[in-house]
Amino acid sequence: MSDLPSAPIASSIDSDNINTRHQRRMERKKALMDEKIQQAQRTTGVLLIHTGNGKGKSSSAFGMVMRALGHGMKVGVVQFIKGAMSTGEEIFLRRFPDEVEFYAMGEGYTWETQNRDRDIEKATVAWAQAKKFLSDPSIGLVVFDELNIALKYHYLDLDTVIADLDARPEMQHVVVTGRGALPELIAIADTVTEMNVVKHAFKDGIVAQAGVEW
Amino acid sequence: MSDLPSAPIASSIDSDNINTRHQRRMERKKALMDEKIQQAQRTTGVLLIHTGNGKGKSSSAFGMVMRALGHGMKVGVVQFIKGAMSTGEEIFLRRFPDEVEFYAMGEGYTWETQNRDRDIEKATVAWAQAKKFLSDPSIGLVVFDELNIALKYHYLDLDTVIADLDARPEMQHVVVTGRGALPELIAIADTVTEMNVVKHAFKDGIVAQAGVEW
Repeated sequence: MSDLPSAPIASSIDSDNINTRHQRRMERKKALMDEKIQQAQRTTGVLLIHTGNGKGKSSSAFGMVMRALGHGMKVGVVQFIKGAMSTGEEIFLRRFPDEVEFYAMGEGYTWETQNRDRDIEKATVAWAQAKKFLSDPSIGLVVFDELNIALKYHYLDLDTVIADLDARPEMQHVVVTGRGALPELIAIADTVTEMNVVKHAFKDGIVAQAGVEW
Repeated sequence: MSDLPSAPIASSIDSDNINTRHQRRMERKKALMDEKIQQAQRTTGVLLIHTGNGKGKSSSAFGMVMRALGHGMKVGVVQFIKGAMSTGEEIFLRRFPDEVEFYAMGEGYTWETQNRDRDIEKATVAWAQAKKFLSDPSIGLVVFDELNIALKYHYLDLDTVIADLDARPEMQHVVVTGRGALPELIAIADTVTEMNVVKHAFKDGIVAQAGVEW
């Protein structure tokens, strides 16, 4: 769906015509956007889910952390599952202890641990920390990184998680990441994005690299 | 594709059985992951594209900036199109002038400007800055935010952009964001992710909010 013709329609189309058509299209777009903005008036804490098999689920949540910090908001982060990996985000965010509270569950990916009971125990402790963030109205944005995985493997009770999310302060935003988001969580979310792989360097033999994957 | 049955197969399945099956599955996963990691050995600068109509294209790029900063890398950012909006990322990143070079094109969304010639002029100046980053091996990660839009509207010459990307330092990573990535750019990219909307709060009348959209 290109907005410009890929080949000239007629040789008489000169630069002026392109500019005129462009301006008309942009005027329509502006009117549409203005109308949408006019309609969207409600301010409230939102629940966002980043799911799918592609890249960008966690990094997008951390980009939102950056936005929130830019706006002077306080941020709480709980990393489920991925905690053992020393990621760049964690190193960076620990530079701002007054602005970001960071809690990383103490194990790596679940297929590294090979122990379901221990995973459940760790997830439960992590959720206790999560609940503290969900009870603190001074925290404007909460990130639950890879919570979807913990829910998918039934490490946490879904009803408890939904009830705690529901009881959070009215203006608090929450981002939940991880592939395989459960339909029950999608149902209560405000914004859900699916990140899909179109192409991945990993498959071409390029190793996971600092600043890109971790 | 749930990894656990949604209903009990038989009442004889007790917690021990679940744990044994879980461990077997995790062992298989670990073996697969180890094999993949074994195969992926090449270290090189990668070109990533974040496209699609969903959220998370820019924020995911800024999450990567956070990762890169965590690993002590220097970062260059050029914001095409979106420059006039004072985003949280920009406010935050300007706190680290020694680590992040930030260049924002001086206009808002293209449908706000309504002037194609001026957009082209601004995009051209922005690309000159982009080229400086692409010639500096001390910069480990470069973000070209909304470059896809500038290319889609033919504000920049695609061949020049591709040639400059191609000539960059070997270990430099580049992230390009924006909906409607051109197939020619996808063809030369290492990793391409499409962010798709499953649900969007905006449609339910919730206004764009600090820390979430900007």
